[in-house]
Amino acid sequence: MIRGKVTGRVWSTKKIGSLPTGGLLEVKVDGGGVLIAFDPLGCAEGETVLITQGSVAAGHFTENKAPVDALIIGSIDNAD
Amino acid sequence: MIRGKVTGRVWSTKKIGSLPTGGLLEVKVDGGGVLIAFDPLGCAEGETVLITQGSVAAGHFTENKAPVDALIIGSIDNAD
Amino acid sequence: MIRGKVTGRVWSTKKIGSLPTGGLLEVKVDGGGVLIAFDPLGCAEGETVLITQGSVAAGHFTENKAPVDALIIGSIDNAD
Amino acid sequence: MIRGKVTGRVWSTKKIGSLPTGGLLEVKVDGGGVLIAFDPLGCAEGETVLITQGSVAAGHFTENKAPVDALIIGSIDNAD
Amino acid sequence: MIRGKVTGRVWSTKKIGSLPTGGLLEVKVDGGGVLIAFDPLGCAEGETVLITQGSVAAGHFTENKAPVDALIIGSIDNAD
Repeated sequence: MIRGKVTGRVWSTKKIGSLPTGGLLEVKVDGGGVLIAFDPLGCAEGETVLITQGSVAAGHFTENKAPVDALIIGSIDNAD
Repeated sequence: MIRGKVTGRVWSTKKIGSLPTGGLLEVKVDGGGVLIAFDPLGCAEGETVLITQGSVAAGHFTENKAPVDALIIGSIDNAD
Repeated sequence: MIRGKVTGRVWSTKKIGSLPTGGLLEVKVDGGGVLIAFDPLGCAEGETVLITQGSVAAGHFTENKAPVDALIIGSIDNAD
Repeated sequence: MIRGKVTGRVWSTKKIGSLPTGGLLEVKVDGGGVLIAFDPLGCAEGETVLITQGSVAAGHFTENKAPVDALIIGSIDNAD
Repeated sequence: MIRGKVTGRVWSTKKIGSLPTGGLLEVKVDGGGVLIAFDPLGCAEGETVLITQGSVAAGHFTENKAPVDALIIGSIDNAD
């Protein structure tokens, strides 16, 4: 997994139907780079989070084939 | 997911049969690099878009095994 | 997908049995880096091609589990 | 696989239910970059380890769809 | 696929049970970076090899879910 800090949130009104409703957070990844990750935990700006990627992220969604390849799976204790 | 800006469109007459018909957009990715992504939403040049990659992208296509590993899944509101 | 220019061809006599027979082309990828991609289209040196990667590439082969994780899926029109 | 050195451990009290209980180790990867990997072997700080990634890592977990995309699969002999 | 040169071999006595027995070779990848790849072909130090990655690599192993995400699939002719 990779670790990063939440730096904002994005909205996407024009989207494909299979994208689940929920938070899309901008995360600055340790070592550089920015990802937009789906957030099932309700994290806040400034929080340090743990992200899983690829089909492993999509596996979190049971109903249809969610097009999510970056998922926040935890908030890291005492990281801030 | 990754975020980027649409910078053009490409065409590929000589292609494998399983590549679905539809827009192939050149996207300049945040942080550097260029991807060619399949566009199911009809995005325009200059639009900021959200891209999912790998087998998660291919999962969008139900009929046959589409050889698509980069898919535009949304346009980001107020990004431009 | 990624885009690149064909810069040569490689041969591999000593290989695992599941690697299908066919062209293995050296491709210089836009933005840097070199990949060796399986070519089902008969592309030539200097041609600009579109490549899909990972399990999406392997999905092109129906018979057995081809160990191919980079596949040329199209040649880009008017790119040269 | 990639190789790296264990440089610490992280804890994540606030997490999604499918993240298995077990060690989450910070690993400094050869060539640069940091990963957080699930550790089924009880490795210690300073140990040089072998990591597998993506859905291959998640395949280690049989019960539910563990959201783990980086897994320590071995400790490298005489590396330290 | 990616191409690289075998630069050594690693051993991992302390490992998870599903890691198959066989050569784990250190490979210096074209363009930079080092991978540890499973070698089903018995390659030697200095040999230029072709590597497939991710779940495509793991697909080579039929019995159980081998945690291998980098597999040597061929040796490149006349490369040395």
